[in-house]
Amino acid sequence: MSEYRVLIDADDAKGLVYKISSIFYHNGLNILSNSEFVDKENNKFFMRSVVDGDIDSIKLKKSIQEILPRNSIVKVINPQKKNIIIMATKELHALGDILIRHEAGELEANILAVVSNYDKLESLVRKFDVPYVTISHEGLDRPEHESRVIECINSFEDVDYIVLAKYMRILTPRFVETYKDKIINIHHSFLPAFIGANPYKQAYDRGVKIIGATAHFVNNNLDEGPIIAQEVIHVNHAYSWKDMQRSGKDVEKVVLSRALKLALEDRIFVYANKTVIF
Amino acid sequence: MSEYRVLIDADDAKGLVYKISSIFYHNGLNILSNSEFVDKENNKFFMRSVVDGDIDSIKLKKSIQEILPRNSIVKVINPQKKNIIIMATKELHALGDILIRHEAGELEANILAVVSNYDKLESLVRKFDVPYVTISHEGLDRPEHESRVIECINSFEDVDYIVLAKYMRILTPRFVETYKDKIINIHHSFLPAFIGANPYKQAYDRGVKIIGATAHFVNNNLDEGPIIAQEVIHVNHAYSWKDMQRSGKDVEKVVLSRALKLALEDRIFVYANKTVIF
Amino acid sequence: MSEYRVLIDADDAKGLVYKISSIFYHNGLNILSNSEFVDKENNKFFMRSVVDGDIDSIKLKKSIQEILPRNSIVKVINPQKKNIIIMATKELHALGDILIRHEAGELEANILAVVSNYDKLESLVRKFDVPYVTISHEGLDRPEHESRVIECINSFEDVDYIVLAKYMRILTPRFVETYKDKIINIHHSFLPAFIGANPYKQAYDRGVKIIGATAHFVNNNLDEGPIIAQEVIHVNHAYSWKDMQRSGKDVEKVVLSRALKLALEDRIFVYANKTVIF
Amino acid sequence: MSEYRVLIDADDAKGLVYKISSIFYHNGLNILSNSEFVDKENNKFFMRSVVDGDIDSIKLKKSIQEILPRNSIVKVINPQKKNIIIMATKELHALGDILIRHEAGELEANILAVVSNYDKLESLVRKFDVPYVTISHEGLDRPEHESRVIECINSFEDVDYIVLAKYMRILTPRFVETYKDKIINIHHSFLPAFIGANPYKQAYDRGVKIIGATAHFVNNNLDEGPIIAQEVIHVNHAYSWKDMQRSGKDVEKVVLSRALKLALEDRIFVYANKTVIF
Repeated sequence: MSEYRVLIDADDAKGLVYKISSIFYHNGLNILSNSEFVDKENNKFFMRSVVDGDIDSIKLKKSIQEILPRNSIVKVINPQKKNIIIMATKELHALGDILIRHEAGELEANILAVVSNYDKLESLVRKFDVPYVTISHEGLDRPEHESRVIECINSFEDVDYIVLAKYMRILTPRFVETYKDKIINIHHSFLPAFIGANPYKQAYDRGVKIIGATAHFVNNNLDEGPIIAQEVIHVNHAYSWKDMQRSGKDVEKVVLSRALKLALEDRIFVYANKTVIF
Repeated sequence: MSEYRVLIDADDAKGLVYKISSIFYHNGLNILSNSEFVDKENNKFFMRSVVDGDIDSIKLKKSIQEILPRNSIVKVINPQKKNIIIMATKELHALGDILIRHEAGELEANILAVVSNYDKLESLVRKFDVPYVTISHEGLDRPEHESRVIECINSFEDVDYIVLAKYMRILTPRFVETYKDKIINIHHSFLPAFIGANPYKQAYDRGVKIIGATAHFVNNNLDEGPIIAQEVIHVNHAYSWKDMQRSGKDVEKVVLSRALKLALEDRIFVYANKTVIF
Repeated sequence: MSEYRVLIDADDAKGLVYKISSIFYHNGLNILSNSEFVDKENNKFFMRSVVDGDIDSIKLKKSIQEILPRNSIVKVINPQKKNIIIMATKELHALGDILIRHEAGELEANILAVVSNYDKLESLVRKFDVPYVTISHEGLDRPEHESRVIECINSFEDVDYIVLAKYMRILTPRFVETYKDKIINIHHSFLPAFIGANPYKQAYDRGVKIIGATAHFVNNNLDEGPIIAQEVIHVNHAYSWKDMQRSGKDVEKVVLSRALKLALEDRIFVYANKTVIF
Repeated sequence: MSEYRVLIDADDAKGLVYKISSIFYHNGLNILSNSEFVDKENNKFFMRSVVDGDIDSIKLKKSIQEILPRNSIVKVINPQKKNIIIMATKELHALGDILIRHEAGELEANILAVVSNYDKLESLVRKFDVPYVTISHEGLDRPEHESRVIECINSFEDVDYIVLAKYMRILTPRFVETYKDKIINIHHSFLPAFIGANPYKQAYDRGVKIIGATAHFVNNNLDEGPIIAQEVIHVNHAYSWKDMQRSGKDVEKVVLSRALKLALEDRIFVYANKTVIF
């Protein structure tokens, strides 16, 4: 008996739940949990089922594919650790939080490496027996630097997600396209407020009473990819922007780790620059 | 074409989703939304579907009942306004919030009457053309007073819910039993902390940094019924207990109205002194 | 013995707390509460003290003024109900919340009138014995319409605050200038995200996981005035923008009422397009 | 020029702010920030000022002491890293969070050692070059085990705080008395709800919709010491108690670290089994 996660992304049609659950039933599969969502506006159907039973996952996938509308996407996943690469620059809090969770066995992930444009975080990362690769951007233009990063990433097999744990460089369209819907970033503001550089300074200047953080997939427009998770904290007039930055770190790390967990558990569907999260 | 809410509370069994969705499908019903939950520990299955189509609700209920395990509960509800009676004492905020929402057309409810042991709120309630019944408890023992309240409630037909909007008297087991799972109370603390009288004073004395409110169904043990909704706010040392009480009112009214809305939309299942909320 | 609120907005200088508290002490005043804030960056000093004692408020103000740097602002306020005018359009929740609080005696305010460009809310407002003035904008250009509104407002004496409880028309610079730092608006988003029209639709389209509301003073740039209070709630993919709008109303009304309360209690200082709130 | 934190805990009396600020002024000290609180009910005065200037801290303390009522407590602190000992059992998240913050230079603290009754966390702690002491409780009764722990703690000089980062053993009155107001614990519930063992299981059984964590000083009554900080998260019927436990960890670690930070910055006053926090 094995456990499978079945993910379905299809155009909506009558009887989908019936037809899918019929396949589960007639294959002797037990539904452990089930989530569906229909977006009427876009006529889209999403479903995530966790089933257990004795079946070939390829056969199951094919059976489901047959009863779905054309262009549907079906994934049948046998849960196992996913492979992630973390990219960071100089800040330690978000990276450190992931390392500690990894150490505690909280994450369904293997950390293949931490890639950074500085060596500042190397000693921390090595404590956790995780490979650390410094690829300095000094003396290189953006495409050259990124080529080296891509080369590094490609030297690992089966990379499922790239986690930007406060990686403070802008990625080129080429990079983003290469790892579409695989790059998870933490932006240190409540998006879409304060897009771009130094959002805490922007928030301070605007005199907001709440600050936040946003984990999102990266697309070509800076800070405009599909949002996965957001969280906020209250601030007041006595906070300097440095205070906001300090307090914001706690939100950033929690939100990034939450988004990563959702991704590792195959709970996220991406469409129309949004996410459906089960 | 009509819309129905189908509620199922059953022992868990293999193929329930398949069998139920099969009935929907073969009766030409369209699933608008669907939520399921299986409590493995207690082997319980809960489902709430909103479907539309052209069918007799009694026939649909019977079809579903037939494929479910014994002792299952099926409800097929054609959404319409429910009848509620509000009980209050002297405080205006929670009652006022419901009256304003009712006036705004936000609630799927007819307010049959407000019943109080004081006449203090009468002028407010009458502004909204809602009947107000004062049943003073003076000179009456608890059973006598309650008998009059029950008599009053029973003079209305088809009462779906009784909403205790800061009704500050303890109800007898007889009362609670009469309206089992129909009485919604707002308790002015984050239950189970601060059961009983003057929870804000208790919270102040304990020096908590967060206070809250809890909406729950009423059962025989004071403040121990199934919890529907909870919310909190942060406080600090500068709050007197009167300040906590004042600030708490905003939480109380929002939580009570949220719980009422969930009930009116048939989103709550009660079992094992808990709620499942879809 | 009377209670006074002493508000000081001054350039920072050495010894201000000492000099001010010295005046309190030598006039036999008792400090009930005291809040100070120094904005180092802008070299600004803010203080709000509540004192009681037996003194002439004009004399007290003068004494304090003398020891402060030039251009300082001192207010000595004998707390009493402030006069407010509420402006609304068609939505009832924010207005209703203020009316209920007023009825409950929670607000240190007299509501002089509700002014609206529609008569939709008239019957509700009249229930509370509050004057309702409909000034339709139909057939009038913006300046003409506003002239009538200003005329109406000016027909009342000593208006302390104008509360925009979902008043859905843009105000002209002339209007804003006339009532500088006296107009409190509720914007139905977490500013500065989603400035402008239909922020819930914007939020829905962006796929955010949190929505909010912002109470702020109005200045000439739409939705860019000093922020007084903000609050948020979590949403998910299953929320349509109408659902967001519905859920957002609870946040809007609570935030607007909170901001109004802060204003009525003389807790807000405005400077540099921000607020200091004690 | 040096910076000092001046902490005053006194019976309330007229003119305290004046007299204290007079001392600051006449000693040429500049007030960087100032917080006061008067508890009228208990006639208590609390003040925390950060001043800078050129003065002997002992002399400053004496000057202030002289103008205060008897039995007042004055502390003049020259900010420097405090010495902490962390106690833990087997769980890594709260301890790990402190270690990462320490590594990032976020904490004004030296971690003298981690003391545990198991060796499970040793490899993690050693990564950070922090001494780890295992004092197994096996074969020892509680007083014997604690004697060894106390002996270990006493082998370090100038221990300012003992942080219980999920130390899962009950402390004896002797231990608590020895380090009065110096032991900071994280309790994994929203106190005073769910005192005692396995609060997540208790919360699950009660069917709450919010769970939380509480950081507090430890006194002789289990989980009843003065509360420093609390935080909560929303849960629903789909959470098993293991899910609550998992999600709760994020709250626990953030709250404990927040409380520790407040302590390290000398922002906490303890009295009447409560805290005043500036």
